[in-house]
Amino acid sequence: MGRQTRKSRGTTYAASGVDIDAAGRAVELIKDKARATFRPEVMTGIGAFAGLFRLTDYNEPVLVSSVDGVGTKLKIAIALDRHDTVGMDLVNHCVNDIFTCGAEPLFFLDYLAVSKLIPEQVETIVGGLARACSEAGCALIGGETAEMPGFYAPGDYDLAGFIVGVVGKDKILDTDSIEAGDILLGLPSSGLHTNGYSLVRKIFGTEPSTLNAYHDELGRTLGEELLEPHRCYYNLVKPVLSGVREREGMPVKGMAHITGGGLIDNVARILPSGVAAVFRSDAWQVPPVFKLIQEQGGVGRDEMYHVFNMGIGMVIVCPPARVDHVVAHIPEARLIGEVVRGDGKGRVVIS
Amino acid sequence: MGRQTRKSRGTTYAASGVDIDAAGRAVELIKDKARATFRPEVMTGIGAFAGLFRLTDYNEPVLVSSVDGVGTKLKIAIALDRHDTVGMDLVNHCVNDIFTCGAEPLFFLDYLAVSKLIPEQVETIVGGLARACSEAGCALIGGETAEMPGFYAPGDYDLAGFIVGVVGKDKILDTDSIEAGDILLGLPSSGLHTNGYSLVRKIFGTEPSTLNAYHDELGRTLGEELLEPHRCYYNLVKPVLSGVREREGMPVKGMAHITGGGLIDNVARILPSGVAAVFRSDAWQVPPVFKLIQEQGGVGRDEMYHVFNMGIGMVIVCPPARVDHVVAHIPEARLIGEVVRGDGKGRVVIS
Repeated sequence: MGRQTRKSRGTTYAASGVDIDAAGRAVELIKDKARATFRPEVMTGIGAFAGLFRLTDYNEPVLVSSVDGVGTKLKIAIALDRHDTVGMDLVNHCVNDIFTCGAEPLFFLDYLAVSKLIPEQVETIVGGLARACSEAGCALIGGETAEMPGFYAPGDYDLAGFIVGVVGKDKILDTDSIEAGDILLGLPSSGLHTNGYSLVRKIFGTEPSTLNAYHDELGRTLGEELLEPHRCYYNLVKPVLSGVREREGMPVKGMAHITGGGLIDNVARILPSGVAAVFRSDAWQVPPVFKLIQEQGGVGRDEMYHVFNMGIGMVIVCPPARVDHVVAHIPEARLIGEVVRGDGKGRVVIS
Repeated sequence: MGRQTRKSRGTTYAASGVDIDAAGRAVELIKDKARATFRPEVMTGIGAFAGLFRLTDYNEPVLVSSVDGVGTKLKIAIALDRHDTVGMDLVNHCVNDIFTCGAEPLFFLDYLAVSKLIPEQVETIVGGLARACSEAGCALIGGETAEMPGFYAPGDYDLAGFIVGVVGKDKILDTDSIEAGDILLGLPSSGLHTNGYSLVRKIFGTEPSTLNAYHDELGRTLGEELLEPHRCYYNLVKPVLSGVREREGMPVKGMAHITGGGLIDNVARILPSGVAAVFRSDAWQVPPVFKLIQEQGGVGRDEMYHVFNMGIGMVIVCPPARVDHVVAHIPEARLIGEVVRGDGKGRVVIS
């Protein structure tokens, strides 16, 4: 268990660009942060090569897993030398992905590849991972820090993560039951989350002077806006799914996490054949950052909705009779569209 | 479930360096390869944002997970434009890691970050992952292909993976029971596995002319030798752990996967306090590739044993009375050392 570092020690090996002392120091710096995320199911003190997690109290458990990276949002963080939020982006993205099935997050492992291991930088990055893990009740059970001399430009790094959650077989959200008349509720995003950054970088570049410029419409600098962490919806939506009485049926039929591809591609992923989704774009306020990107980049409207979340980070599909229940728990949920009959595999329209 | 790609479509987005058509084509090319690894527990057709795996037939299940990368062995593969084996390296490394606890591999997810998405290259890489997954009975349940323009040099990529296995709580190998007198059995490695490549690159470089040079003592080119896949020990050792009668006790007390840090660091990881491990270096033949590295690089003997596996990929600790049982199942296992009393936290000596 715990964090591995892909390196050895000794003069010769150190001379090849791999620094064992830095690795050891990084491990010391992050050990307590990871340990603070542990749950009682984490088995410590055994498993020198792996992380162990006891699975208890589940009837017909289904493990739900996902992998993701932060993507080129990292370039903004690197340009601004600010590394405390990218771990939150990664964990929150992964938690949201498995939560679309109704799964409770159990544990997380990260992969951090660096050109040169700087212990304090690793500490800051893992600190962000640990903070987001704690908030979602998820144990940061292991990780790999790979020092890869010659792979990344100096100061660059890549960060990916893997999550495992669990859901009882009878509690998996039943997207097959989605039908015409169901309501589409949107939950506000906190910003770009982790998608569209290659386009953003093409428009704005990554010069600190540009990123540090203050924008009135944002109320902060562009860089601060772009680094706003990906929002986690688990604690917000979980109470809606808990404590539901059998005879009422599940209040949520499906959830779509709005990542790359926007509302259009991601909602399509959960629609059964024979239905389509229609969103009313005037039903919510598109946050200023998207307007700024659209204007500065001369990006078309369709393109904007296809690349960015446009202010909606999660879509919840629920039967009309259960909308009040959901909105009572989540006052910020907005009615932004509905499911209609379609003539093929689910399509998504934004009016 | 299935493979995500971190990109969207459209002219503007494509112009920023992210190619959605290539992504779609890559997904098509690898879908069947991944599907061929599925086990009955994999739930297909649901979970658009995650992979689902039913956990059945385990009493007090403990999930065992690990994450790893291929490391700079990738540079050799990239230099030789040969991408069919790095996936095997990664899966086999991960399977071995969780198997040290006695865990059976269940499923695997990969993270592949590329400078530019070349569908056929992705297909070849994932083909290697899928082949190794199938051999270990492990489902390749998901993956992420991240196209990261500006992060990696043209043609470069990084590959990391994440495995989840399971072991019954009472079947976890009990390294705490390791005591003086126990025997250390070594299983042959297939080559360097995935460690020491930064040093190897420092000595030999990555010029194709050097890598393609034939070496009599290797019986093949240096590049072929260096790309030899990391060996998987699961199918070899599994029968030893299965069908053991209660009264005989477990024939294996612990296993150490010999990765970065060599015999010295990795065996130390499983030794309880109060014991040490003594290996007799004349008990096995060090393969020619290590001698070549040592001579060409002028690397000291101690350093060699600290960076490389030196021909031993896995160490099995077993009580003297059970050595015959283990060797009967694994004729290639070699008696290479024993556990002795020590005066502190486990140390490892190579005589």
